[in-house]
Amino acid sequence: MSEKDPAVDMHGAVCPVPLQQKSTIVIGHGSGGKMMHDLISEVFIPAFGNPILAAGNDAGLAPAGSNSHYAISTDAHVVKPLFFPGGDIGKLAVCGTVNDVAMLGAIPKYLAAGFILEEGLDISILSQVVQSMRESAEEAGIQIVAGDTKVVEKGKADGLYITTAGFGEIIPYPHPIGGQHAQPGDRVILSGTLGDHGIAVLGARGDLGFESDVKSDIAPLNHLIHAILQVSDKVHVLRDPTRGGLATSLNEIAKQSQVGIILDEKTIPVKPAVQSACEMLGFDPLYIANEGKLIVICAAEDEEKVLATMRKTDDGQQAIAIGEIITDPPGRVLMKTLIGSHRVVDILAGELLPRIC
Amino acid sequence: MSEKDPAVDMHGAVCPVPLQQKSTIVIGHGSGGKMMHDLISEVFIPAFGNPILAAGNDAGLAPAGSNSHYAISTDAHVVKPLFFPGGDIGKLAVCGTVNDVAMLGAIPKYLAAGFILEEGLDISILSQVVQSMRESAEEAGIQIVAGDTKVVEKGKADGLYITTAGFGEIIPYPHPIGGQHAQPGDRVILSGTLGDHGIAVLGARGDLGFESDVKSDIAPLNHLIHAILQVSDKVHVLRDPTRGGLATSLNEIAKQSQVGIILDEKTIPVKPAVQSACEMLGFDPLYIANEGKLIVICAAEDEEKVLATMRKTDDGQQAIAIGEIITDPPGRVLMKTLIGSHRVVDILAGELLPRIC
Repeated sequence: MSEKDPAVDMHGAVCPVPLQQKSTIVIGHGSGGKMMHDLISEVFIPAFGNPILAAGNDAGLAPAGSNSHYAISTDAHVVKPLFFPGGDIGKLAVCGTVNDVAMLGAIPKYLAAGFILEEGLDISILSQVVQSMRESAEEAGIQIVAGDTKVVEKGKADGLYITTAGFGEIIPYPHPIGGQHAQPGDRVILSGTLGDHGIAVLGARGDLGFESDVKSDIAPLNHLIHAILQVSDKVHVLRDPTRGGLATSLNEIAKQSQVGIILDEKTIPVKPAVQSACEMLGFDPLYIANEGKLIVICAAEDEEKVLATMRKTDDGQQAIAIGEIITDPPGRVLMKTLIGSHRVVDILAGELLPRIC
Repeated sequence: MSEKDPAVDMHGAVCPVPLQQKSTIVIGHGSGGKMMHDLISEVFIPAFGNPILAAGNDAGLAPAGSNSHYAISTDAHVVKPLFFPGGDIGKLAVCGTVNDVAMLGAIPKYLAAGFILEEGLDISILSQVVQSMRESAEEAGIQIVAGDTKVVEKGKADGLYITTAGFGEIIPYPHPIGGQHAQPGDRVILSGTLGDHGIAVLGARGDLGFESDVKSDIAPLNHLIHAILQVSDKVHVLRDPTRGGLATSLNEIAKQSQVGIILDEKTIPVKPAVQSACEMLGFDPLYIANEGKLIVICAAEDEEKVLATMRKTDDGQQAIAIGEIITDPPGRVLMKTLIGSHRVVDILAGELLPRIC
């Protein structure tokens, strides 16, 4: 077989048929990882392509009026089950979108919510979800100003799906905040433990095979972010590591900014119960979704004051510096392991945990 | 049975069990009619209640910055089948939200789109839908600045559901435009024929039992509206009669403004093919959804120039005055029939045509 054979992939392994693009949607396309990125870059960006969307941040930065900008974001929520320790689909639908908007340094102001309801859904369940949305919206300080309701036949929609869109006002800051602004020398700070949300949902689904008391970390992060931006004018990137986990979010940032990121494994916080669940199931906490965690990338000189500010808040008590931005290799994330070697931390390839948000 | 028996409904008919609220979601809750209004007023408004949402317009009017307002709207789209004569779910997802935003007299600027994809969906179908969204967005002059993709298992989601949210900038106008601003003496103008969209979707579904060449009227109406607002400063209400049809939209306006509306049946335009389909199926075109029609309520003195402006546009060629705003009975819609009598035109009660948008 010649070296030019298209059936030989880049690692030299031989594939019996030429590698091809998937022609139908598979669960992995919703993973937040490589398959989803491929779908976005091959189907959505070529069609919708504009500089705002192509920036690839959690929210689009849109000019409004003569002199201001708004952050606009949307998230569809299909979590299964609807209720899990620490939250439910309603809390997720509000916090997920609030957080995406806040990641551009915006104050989330308005939310729109579209409900797809399954025939036969108990209205008492809908009421609980809606009440939870209300409480989360109050906590985040956002108003729900538009809504829509559709009903589909029994057997569709698993009770309900909720899609929210958020609209936030960019606050004055010396420079734009976004995934493309990480700079060599910057420090990477994480607000707390990894993997709580994914493991909590798996537990509620009965997929762990054992009892777990792990609660989801879902929380609106806008107040935490606001506190950070008040004390530091050198924050370059904010990102919440949701689908695809910390590993995928950092890979996205490394590519957007064309920098390398080096992590120190011993600093990365994971709860013992999450660690145990991951070991039993063969998961890596770096790839598990979080819904109330924040990555802050800021100039090294502001690291201490950002950490101190975060640690004073409920959602940032366990904030810790986990790595730094380097020049080489651009677009890659490396990890200094516990035994002192280095390994590449890649983007999530397929699907780890479907339907966790 | 005493007159006070709760089992006697208001028309005097006897119901074998006391009338009760539904405790589960039924298809009628997605109708756009009375059941949906009840669900909104009993579940959503009490939880989310704020003056913007409670205004009950197609879009929420939200203050932005110091001196401007934005129109924010959202729509979930679950149409079945995905493609039908004159359009598809993608065109619907863009135009539906563009139109809701435009109904407050706003220029639609930005769109966010959340996709719920069914495992097994052909990516070529997704690409067609996305291409159609692109074309509609270009036609409407709106940018798609945020998106999200989730995947659910085979058997859920009928291929795909799309929820869009739209953001529009309110343009300077002497007064606010909205369902609560109709005034006695105002004229009611309709931009064209009723029922085309609903009958086109039914035809594509094979539910008509015969061949039909009716095409959906889906279109972005923002350019038509912009033209109207340029020639008249006396427009009080704009509304697109979608789910629930003209009858339901006018009932909503009558209630919001606490006025009566009297229609003249002989003026109401319906295509012969739509009329035939309705007669065979026992439907009333007044209740069938439209996706490219506009109701304009303006001062009588501006009727002629609004009509003349509308008739110069593609989407308003058949514009016609169909009625007027009266003082009594407040909150009701009346129709002067072909034989000269008057009848009450009520809001849609249950569900007429599920899954048409």
